[in-house]
Amino acid sequence: MKASQYIGAGKVEYREVPLAEPGDDELRVKVAYCGICGTDLHIFKGHMDARVKAPQAVGHEVSGTVAAMGKNVTGFKIGQKVTVRPLDNCGACNTCRVGFTHICEKLRFLGIETAGGFAEYWTVPARLVHALPEDMPLKLAALVEPLAVACHDVRRSELRPGDRVVVSGGGPIGMLIALCARAAGGIVTVCEINEKRLELARQLGFKTIDPLKEDPVGIIRGETGGSGAEVVFEVSGSEAGARVITELARPRGTIVVVAIYAKPVPVDLHKFFWKELRMLGARVYEANDYEQAIALAAGNTLPLERLISEVFPLSELQQAFEFLTRTPDAMKVLIQCSSEVEK
Amino acid sequence: MKASQYIGAGKVEYREVPLAEPGDDELRVKVAYCGICGTDLHIFKGHMDARVKAPQAVGHEVSGTVAAMGKNVTGFKIGQKVTVRPLDNCGACNTCRVGFTHICEKLRFLGIETAGGFAEYWTVPARLVHALPEDMPLKLAALVEPLAVACHDVRRSELRPGDRVVVSGGGPIGMLIALCARAAGGIVTVCEINEKRLELARQLGFKTIDPLKEDPVGIIRGETGGSGAEVVFEVSGSEAGARVITELARPRGTIVVVAIYAKPVPVDLHKFFWKELRMLGARVYEANDYEQAIALAAGNTLPLERLISEVFPLSELQQAFEFLTRTPDAMKVLIQCSSEVEK
Repeated sequence: MKASQYIGAGKVEYREVPLAEPGDDELRVKVAYCGICGTDLHIFKGHMDARVKAPQAVGHEVSGTVAAMGKNVTGFKIGQKVTVRPLDNCGACNTCRVGFTHICEKLRFLGIETAGGFAEYWTVPARLVHALPEDMPLKLAALVEPLAVACHDVRRSELRPGDRVVVSGGGPIGMLIALCARAAGGIVTVCEINEKRLELARQLGFKTIDPLKEDPVGIIRGETGGSGAEVVFEVSGSEAGARVITELARPRGTIVVVAIYAKPVPVDLHKFFWKELRMLGARVYEANDYEQAIALAAGNTLPLERLISEVFPLSELQQAFEFLTRTPDAMKVLIQCSSEVEK
Repeated sequence: MKASQYIGAGKVEYREVPLAEPGDDELRVKVAYCGICGTDLHIFKGHMDARVKAPQAVGHEVSGTVAAMGKNVTGFKIGQKVTVRPLDNCGACNTCRVGFTHICEKLRFLGIETAGGFAEYWTVPARLVHALPEDMPLKLAALVEPLAVACHDVRRSELRPGDRVVVSGGGPIGMLIALCARAAGGIVTVCEINEKRLELARQLGFKTIDPLKEDPVGIIRGETGGSGAEVVFEVSGSEAGARVITELARPRGTIVVVAIYAKPVPVDLHKFFWKELRMLGARVYEANDYEQAIALAAGNTLPLERLISEVFPLSELQQAFEFLTRTPDAMKVLIQCSSEVEK
């Protein structure tokens, strides 16, 4: 089969690779689309060579159809539309044992620690495969993985209808969180410094704040009788973002830390204490978040299509990474991995 | 009546002051004991002159008996043992309106923003007075206020029996949290750098760690199969304490911020995200925490007596503050405010 493998920093190669036979409990997916995650871009730039064994195809935001099944696999049929929850947990560590399998202490992330979805076929443990409705477009289905991240983040927040919500950072994940939070009844403002992303957020019907030109704390307080937001999602990963979360949240408000911070940053623990704030870390997703994301995408009420910036063929993954590198305000870029794709 | 009033930085004066008549909804308490809080010491040192209008008696950890009542006050009788929850909330701000009256945006803290309990009598709103069991020693009852802080912190943590608990900081509040957490079924380790406090913690039956001599993270991980503690109470207020909280807590663990941090400090938000930690600010107490503290003190199962370092008469409040200033490892110091005190 064809795959586009990561070779080393800045270099991907489209080449013929062996087609893996599914093991007894595995399932081979014919990949339709595989989205590029921020993590994939980090890998492309050579930042994650400790975890990725080049040459290796990466990618984990996959939609496709069942192509083959191991002998123990039941509940699927050939040609069925599916997506993959790429978290292969150990089942034995203390964190798995108490039920938090998605943050397993020995988690293997499919497409990072194992071969990934930038390939014609992807062979994965069948227990990590989720069925899709037959009428779901496979292009949209490639957004189920990042949408599940957003579902997880909003679920963690315990957001209630009517809550004022600030999403700090308007990239793909931030925008998906904004959409999910609104679907849950939140009244959402997106903070973002990039003009193109701000414009998209406005087109999607969100209030926006550019913190380089406006004062987010003053605006949010002004709109909440001086109190602040019930829920703040920190998706920017910036020091400025961390500085302002304790100001944006109202007394007893909730802050969800979604962003990946490269190093410890100052947090105002006095304000945290004074307002009895709650801060929750939120990482990836659990099985129920995946099912919710599939239902939301199938329901066709979220404008997910609007978040897709570009689609490149599998043979042009190198160009896709280069496009993303020079276009930091791009939203979701998909790779079409099979030449014929079922709608 | 006699009171010991704060005059200015480093200076308290024992003097005759007018006896306030209780208003219609007020109650006059004959003060038996009033504990010295860390906040009172800050006031004595002149750090809080913006909030305290000298000359003024401060103090808010009071036990006593009902001496007089305004005409609207019901449910109490003269001579009845009582304590005071010193949080006079406005009832009208956004935070009061949603029920978090203890962190009211316009909170008046009795004994800080108003005259306090280092006096023979203390006149306060009757709605803030809690009845005590008739057989509760009034010396112990002066610990109800700090014990209510500890009850609030442990309640916020949602600690479950069997949870591993680290209390970082072994002063009076840290030690009370340790006692409450153990009463709730937690298995508690106290981290503290002062030898005298470490010794007291050991005498009270707690495991202890001196982070200047030992590695708290290594020890706690070693005792939890590598995972970390379910609940961490940060009571030290130190930058080192803030650095280690995200290491001490297990995946999905809870950190309660009790300490008052003077300035923003670095927090490892990456670890926070990675382990999906939860951090909760906890400030003062709510009415139910007070009732729990009274029940716990009345139950006589906590060694509260052991936390009382010294008792000074009201006329020697200046000496008591000086004692605390030169004895940083003292635990609770009480002021006996009436010459005759009922047991």
